[in-house]
Amino acid sequence: MTITITAFERSPDRGKGLARDMRVRWVLEEVGQPYDVRLLSFRAMKEPAHRALHPFGQIPTYEEGDLVLFESGAIVFHIAERHAGLLPGDANARARAIAWMFAALNTVEPPIVERDVAKILERDTPWYEQRLRLLEDSIRKRLGGLSDRLGDADWLDGAFSAGDLLMVSVLLRLKGSGILDEYANLSAYVARGEARPAYKRAFDAQLAVFTAAWSG
Amino acid sequence: MTITITAFERSPDRGKGLARDMRVRWVLEEVGQPYDVRLLSFRAMKEPAHRALHPFGQIPTYEEGDLVLFESGAIVFHIAERHAGLLPGDANARARAIAWMFAALNTVEPPIVERDVAKILERDTPWYEQRLRLLEDSIRKRLGGLSDRLGDADWLDGAFSAGDLLMVSVLLRLKGSGILDEYANLSAYVARGEARPAYKRAFDAQLAVFTAAWSG
Repeated sequence: MTITITAFERSPDRGKGLARDMRVRWVLEEVGQPYDVRLLSFRAMKEPAHRALHPFGQIPTYEEGDLVLFESGAIVFHIAERHAGLLPGDANARARAIAWMFAALNTVEPPIVERDVAKILERDTPWYEQRLRLLEDSIRKRLGGLSDRLGDADWLDGAFSAGDLLMVSVLLRLKGSGILDEYANLSAYVARGEARPAYKRAFDAQLAVFTAAWSG
Repeated sequence: MTITITAFERSPDRGKGLARDMRVRWVLEEVGQPYDVRLLSFRAMKEPAHRALHPFGQIPTYEEGDLVLFESGAIVFHIAERHAGLLPGDANARARAIAWMFAALNTVEPPIVERDVAKILERDTPWYEQRLRLLEDSIRKRLGGLSDRLGDADWLDGAFSAGDLLMVSVLLRLKGSGILDEYANLSAYVARGEARPAYKRAFDAQLAVFTAAWSG
């Protein structure tokens, strides 16, 4: 059955792998599933046709026959559940890998996204510098806990899992902030994720969209 | 096997059901699983013994034999997966219910929590009123999409699911803000959640902890 995902026609990150379709491309590459991509303008994302697929008018969506999904975490889980290699076979280890998926999206990502949003919406406000410091402290609280738990392991709990895929994706948003560099083991962890052949293929595919849009 | 969860010894919400152990209590009541509760002081939550269970030093955790889980979303999923009634049997409907779990925690909850945090950390700053308005606009964007999708249905996608359980839990944090009242169908949706006998049992159990702590 053909898989179709949606992505930004012109990604705000200029194709640097930070848009949430990247997570879906990455997991599809990990399991070797081909997929089509439908590109959307910012205007098309808010129109009824797309809102019928995604109630919040965002990307990515996932279509496979009659099934329509939204939320990158749910799409990654759907694929990880149906193919070997991204969730452990042992029941307890599988539950822990899923806990890391939720931790990436509900504990670690929110203050990181908040910082990205503040950099756009609050840059010209008089409180910008103070807000940024508050946010960065709150990011450091999460990274400190994560760094202590990771220790000198390669991945968060045994072999690479869908939990690592989402955690690396979330941490990548800190690139260029300097914050990630304060945690040597987390920087190495993110680099291990980026070095995976599936990550590289996904990254190249989404960068090609951006390059084509701006050279076309 | 005995299930043990952790909760605040003295919840900051004064036992009003907003702490994240409430979600775990609720799902356990929905499936009729008894559980023990270990109460933690704020200091104990940050100590190594608890951090060994929860890398971010928060509540709730979930212990069942050899299994230790953290992240309320992951715990709710773990229980929903092992008992009938909270995830549809049909594969596509099940994937969509899981998408609502992620939507509750990764799309709807972050700006709501941000508002709660701003009300504590930024109340005395000169920018407080402006920040609150920015945050409430961002909450309204999410609630608008959710309200349109819910329409006049009882639950988000067919029968009550773990996705509804998490979404109602997240929306409950808006009680008293007036924002939820702007969406009649979402207010009725939350009231339907609160009217479930399992919700009531869970609410009473966590309120009893608070009442005992302050009368003891």
